[in-house]
Amino acid sequence: MNGPVFILKGNIIYSKEINKFTICEHGYLVCRDGYVEGVYQTLPFKLGGYPVHDYGDCLIIPGLTDLHIHAPQYSFRGLGMDMELLEWLEANTFPEEAKYKDTDYAKKAYKIFADSMRKSATTRACIFATIHRPATLLLMDLMEKTGLDTYVGKVNMDRNSPGYLSETTKESAEETLEWVKDVYHRKYENTHPILTPRFTPTCTDELMEELKKLQMRYQLPLQSHLSENQSEMAWVKELCPWAEIYADVYDRFGLFGADCPTVMAHCVYSDDREIGRMKENGVFIAHCPESNMNVSSGIAPVRKFLEKGLHVGLGSDVAGGSSENLFRAMAHAIQASKLRWRVQDDSLEALTAEEVFYMATKGGGAFFGKVGSFESGYDFDAVVLDDSRFKSPRPLDIRSRLERMLYLADEREVHAKYVKGKEVDLS
Amino acid sequence: MNGPVFILKGNIIYSKEINKFTICEHGYLVCRDGYVEGVYQTLPFKLGGYPVHDYGDCLIIPGLTDLHIHAPQYSFRGLGMDMELLEWLEANTFPEEAKYKDTDYAKKAYKIFADSMRKSATTRACIFATIHRPATLLLMDLMEKTGLDTYVGKVNMDRNSPGYLSETTKESAEETLEWVKDVYHRKYENTHPILTPRFTPTCTDELMEELKKLQMRYQLPLQSHLSENQSEMAWVKELCPWAEIYADVYDRFGLFGADCPTVMAHCVYSDDREIGRMKENGVFIAHCPESNMNVSSGIAPVRKFLEKGLHVGLGSDVAGGSSENLFRAMAHAIQASKLRWRVQDDSLEALTAEEVFYMATKGGGAFFGKVGSFESGYDFDAVVLDDSRFKSPRPLDIRSRLERMLYLADEREVHAKYVKGKEVDLS
Repeated sequence: MNGPVFILKGNIIYSKEINKFTICEHGYLVCRDGYVEGVYQTLPFKLGGYPVHDYGDCLIIPGLTDLHIHAPQYSFRGLGMDMELLEWLEANTFPEEAKYKDTDYAKKAYKIFADSMRKSATTRACIFATIHRPATLLLMDLMEKTGLDTYVGKVNMDRNSPGYLSETTKESAEETLEWVKDVYHRKYENTHPILTPRFTPTCTDELMEELKKLQMRYQLPLQSHLSENQSEMAWVKELCPWAEIYADVYDRFGLFGADCPTVMAHCVYSDDREIGRMKENGVFIAHCPESNMNVSSGIAPVRKFLEKGLHVGLGSDVAGGSSENLFRAMAHAIQASKLRWRVQDDSLEALTAEEVFYMATKGGGAFFGKVGSFESGYDFDAVVLDDSRFKSPRPLDIRSRLERMLYLADEREVHAKYVKGKEVDLS
Repeated sequence: MNGPVFILKGNIIYSKEINKFTICEHGYLVCRDGYVEGVYQTLPFKLGGYPVHDYGDCLIIPGLTDLHIHAPQYSFRGLGMDMELLEWLEANTFPEEAKYKDTDYAKKAYKIFADSMRKSATTRACIFATIHRPATLLLMDLMEKTGLDTYVGKVNMDRNSPGYLSETTKESAEETLEWVKDVYHRKYENTHPILTPRFTPTCTDELMEELKKLQMRYQLPLQSHLSENQSEMAWVKELCPWAEIYADVYDRFGLFGADCPTVMAHCVYSDDREIGRMKENGVFIAHCPESNMNVSSGIAPVRKFLEKGLHVGLGSDVAGGSSENLFRAMAHAIQASKLRWRVQDDSLEALTAEEVFYMATKGGGAFFGKVGSFESGYDFDAVVLDDSRFKSPRPLDIRSRLERMLYLADEREVHAKYVKGKEVDLS
């Protein structure tokens, strides 16, 4: 499968539009030079002679994009969940992240994280590391080896952080600069730097200004958190009384998508003005439904984001979310939207399987370019799912089999995975 | 392990009270004649010489009780979820359940269900079959072979049901009587009959009266649905204008726990009067959080049930819920309660890991007697969990390891399982 052209055969299912699956049963998916050439029910004559990998009755879907995940938090996924956001940060997150100052610990922990990501159905991810430059580079080395294509960010924190996990403004700016230089020296193929101010409560205005300079110098994308939780919102209002909407705390510094691609996690409490600003600036939203449940944040108005034409993808947000498995995120997105419709606001209809699948593939994939679909010219990211573990007394159509994956699939179903035309080693 | 006394060694964790785990690290759990004799940090001298099965660093927990699951719906778990309850019943449930008239189909489908139950962490369950007597007996044969201890009910439906899945009142009563007689002839050790009027919309008053006669003649427990969904509530109000609260539609016929153990699924919309009635009558509540999300029902006020001292257990409610995995039900119960607190009613605090674990063990287990704990005299239902799949860069305490199971465990973690002192074959 290493030649410029190869072909996968199976039950191909992907999204062109948000509310419809495109299905080609027992079809052919053609890769040329790392890009999708096309999907064919019958293989065109001109493609005869190229290698065909026949995956039988498996499903073949585009790779999934995780728009928001914290690598250092993987070590405490599913732990200490009986708390709200700010308490949870103090009690679980900060003490754990401080350990990544120790590169031996980081190596051990990040190896576990990278292995899990490699075996999952995820092909693209936006990843938070910690404030530590050496450990962040180590994580990038490990992610590069997985074959996944990812953005990884050294975190910035220069205020309201415990002494054991804090930088001065100067340190934070300098270390970030050094880290970016280190990254360019390492010439990764699939691993890219992304600016990562943790969130406004831990970043001074001065630091934001420094990050903007860096962004302009290196054309760096940016990831952060936005309007996640009510206590956090109140804190931001206190810290930045000048901000009319939460988004201002980034936008004032030019760090809200105006110049470089930007992804904001959560947006549970984004109002119409904030939604408008995200639309204008092309900001991506990482919807993280399980995390929003686990740390009692609430339910984001995703239907409204979609109606307004915003870019929306899904995030596992480990360890606010408990698993890197994005199928779970899809199910949780549907479930949360149903509860929102039922108990909060019945003007916004629940999300469908089609919509959340789109978000997990083409929606979030767009942050990486033409990614997340099998339309011609897209990067060849494909996941082959063997769902034979789920025995059924009756035959199921392809759409049903995919819907079932949202609720039940995990890494056991991932039979093969390709990123930009290269097969990932799942062993 | 077949003698009258044997001992399991491992990290024992169980509930005596609802808000506290009782933990015995590297301790001994002693079984005598199918009952728990005790939990010991050091094995008493008098117990020397009995066989000890050392499960090393595994966790040992009480078996889980699934208070509400539909066996015939296992075939479409995770399918057709983009609908609300009544539409979902018409589109998915009734057509599928009709197939169980065919015992060949039933055998194939129920075999898959029984195998999954056997391999899960569940040791007790209250199971709905369909209206069909032969298929229900077939299911009971299969459940008996699993070694689990279960209640299984032939469903009753004599109105508002599609022609292909309906009984006359006379048929329904007679078939139920014949079924109960059949069951007694088969002399199952672990499989018990339970009256199962589907819900009021599908059962006439006359049928309810017939079921009451049967109940009194055979002392049969009963399972049904209560106050699940707003459209269903409205329908019940139309059908039974005389009912002041939904519970009246059972209580009027003496079928609401006054004479025999009764379990009601959902209770999402039970008000204070209904809660009071359940308390008086000792009715068990099967809280089914995932199902309540999936069919857009809402979120039950579980905190209130607990405050009032009601019996509350968990139900997977497949296929309203997508999985028989009760660990997921525990996580979903916490998550739903957090959203309820946040978006619906902040007077009811979210549930904790301790509380949902209690519900899944001792809370629901009480429907089966002294079941679901390792206190002396309880039935010896134990599950050995090997959580080594979840690698961690740091050591975790026993409570943390159990909490993580709620979010991440599935049948892969079930290393061994005992029901009433007998080991279940997990192969």
